[in-house]
Amino acid sequence: MLEPIDIFHLMFDNDPFSRWMGMALVSIEKGSCTLRMQVRPEMLNGFGVAHGAITFALADSAFAFACNTSGYQSVSIHCTIEHVAPVEAGDWLEAIAIEERAGNRISNYSIRIIRSGDGAPVAFFRGICFHKNQNWTK
Amino acid sequence: MLEPIDIFHLMFDNDPFSRWMGMALVSIEKGSCTLRMQVRPEMLNGFGVAHGAITFALADSAFAFACNTSGYQSVSIHCTIEHVAPVEAGDWLEAIAIEERAGNRISNYSIRIIRSGDGAPVAFFRGICFHKNQNWTK
Amino acid sequence: MLEPIDIFHLMFDNDPFSRWMGMALVSIEKGSCTLRMQVRPEMLNGFGVAHGAITFALADSAFAFACNTSGYQSVSIHCTIEHVAPVEAGDWLEAIAIEERAGNRISNYSIRIIRSGDGAPVAFFRGICFHKNQNWTK
Amino acid sequence: MLEPIDIFHLMFDNDPFSRWMGMALVSIEKGSCTLRMQVRPEMLNGFGVAHGAITFALADSAFAFACNTSGYQSVSIHCTIEHVAPVEAGDWLEAIAIEERAGNRISNYSIRIIRSGDGAPVAFFRGICFHKNQNWTK
Repeated sequence: MLEPIDIFHLMFDNDPFSRWMGMALVSIEKGSCTLRMQVRPEMLNGFGVAHGAITFALADSAFAFACNTSGYQSVSIHCTIEHVAPVEAGDWLEAIAIEERAGNRISNYSIRIIRSGDGAPVAFFRGICFHKNQNWTK
Repeated sequence: MLEPIDIFHLMFDNDPFSRWMGMALVSIEKGSCTLRMQVRPEMLNGFGVAHGAITFALADSAFAFACNTSGYQSVSIHCTIEHVAPVEAGDWLEAIAIEERAGNRISNYSIRIIRSGDGAPVAFFRGICFHKNQNWTK
Repeated sequence: MLEPIDIFHLMFDNDPFSRWMGMALVSIEKGSCTLRMQVRPEMLNGFGVAHGAITFALADSAFAFACNTSGYQSVSIHCTIEHVAPVEAGDWLEAIAIEERAGNRISNYSIRIIRSGDGAPVAFFRGICFHKNQNWTK
Repeated sequence: MLEPIDIFHLMFDNDPFSRWMGMALVSIEKGSCTLRMQVRPEMLNGFGVAHGAITFALADSAFAFACNTSGYQSVSIHCTIEHVAPVEAGDWLEAIAIEERAGNRISNYSIRIIRSGDGAPVAFFRGICFHKNQNWTK
């Protein structure tokens, strides 16, 4: 059985998009993961604030790493995101993914995205994953 | 009152992330928008398929352009996405955003993301926006 | 293999809540189901309009019957509902559940709830189900 | 300005559906509300467990009371529910609604539904409301 940090590296080291985003690991344990990143100018939309997909991406990656710490290869089947504050270039964001309930095939996660500076929430994300029969191995 | 295509250009021409993604306009009318893009290797995740944020981004941009054709500056307050098929590098995707109901302050959109090759759905997205009091003007 | 109408009766005839609601079948086929009902005074909330759970219940039942026509005992894992118009006592409602994508374990449904009088949408519902290994049998 | 408990009574005392359900108030404060109820045989579905609309109704009422403590008449625009465990006749349920972020027009709530006996979660619910311009008054 691989450790959460080993599964993280098997995923993240082969994940060009999370790396393009500049995501960095804050912590990973069985059932949880926290990531952080800084918003760059190329991540903005036509309103001059971060594109909705940027906060989504950070949360979705934290969710993906958290649900794969189960040891089973796990894929997202449903996500919701509620945007509650605009995000600007230069902002540091943190996404904290927590397993709310672990099932055999289906598990449920809450992911909170905050601005690191003042801790204000910028989005609330929920994710449901499906655990496949396939284990993570080296 | 600006035309949908004028509002699209005011947004898209100043949207570095949608442009980094390589999104292109297929059609825009009052209440609807279709975009397309091709998945590139830098958009993949650790499973070797498109990161969930890629399909999300395409749908979210189509939703944003569609809801701003109202003429009011409009922001996303809620999105859900259901991933139903993996997406690979080289795949062409299309996101078709349709207004399902227009309100004064709140409107509701359905966005379907398909693989252009065979028309198979890869994700279902729903978006709710809030229309601000501020009009789009040149 | 049971027919959709047989599965419907096995479920509905033993479903006291759907019967208390006064739901009636309009049509059922593999992957789809339409139900209707009339809103009664005991279904209202403190604003004098139908409680949000009433439109939810009608949609949720239509979703449940539709996803069980797969022949596998199937349970809801995620639902979203967007309320777009108030519903009043005396209104007839119709919920039209359509399978948008059928998977082995996970399937996706769109359910539209309309007011029968004028066909106006009152809510948009999405449902995801999990198909168990257990078949429906007499 | 009315107190949360006064707004609760203006709503609940005129809410035949929440009363038919047998909901009872545990606590209400500005931005939060906890309700409880016992599942009765007439609330079951064709699988012999509580209809999905039962847990939804309890959460939706707790959400409605919580968001109206703002002092503004407030309506639901979006709800999601994730069912994570079956609920049986006789079970006591508790729904705990907490405001996660208060805005001028749009606010966001998390509602957790647990089985009172062992505290196990049975569903996770998220609600977004729209605050109208109209105040609650006696």
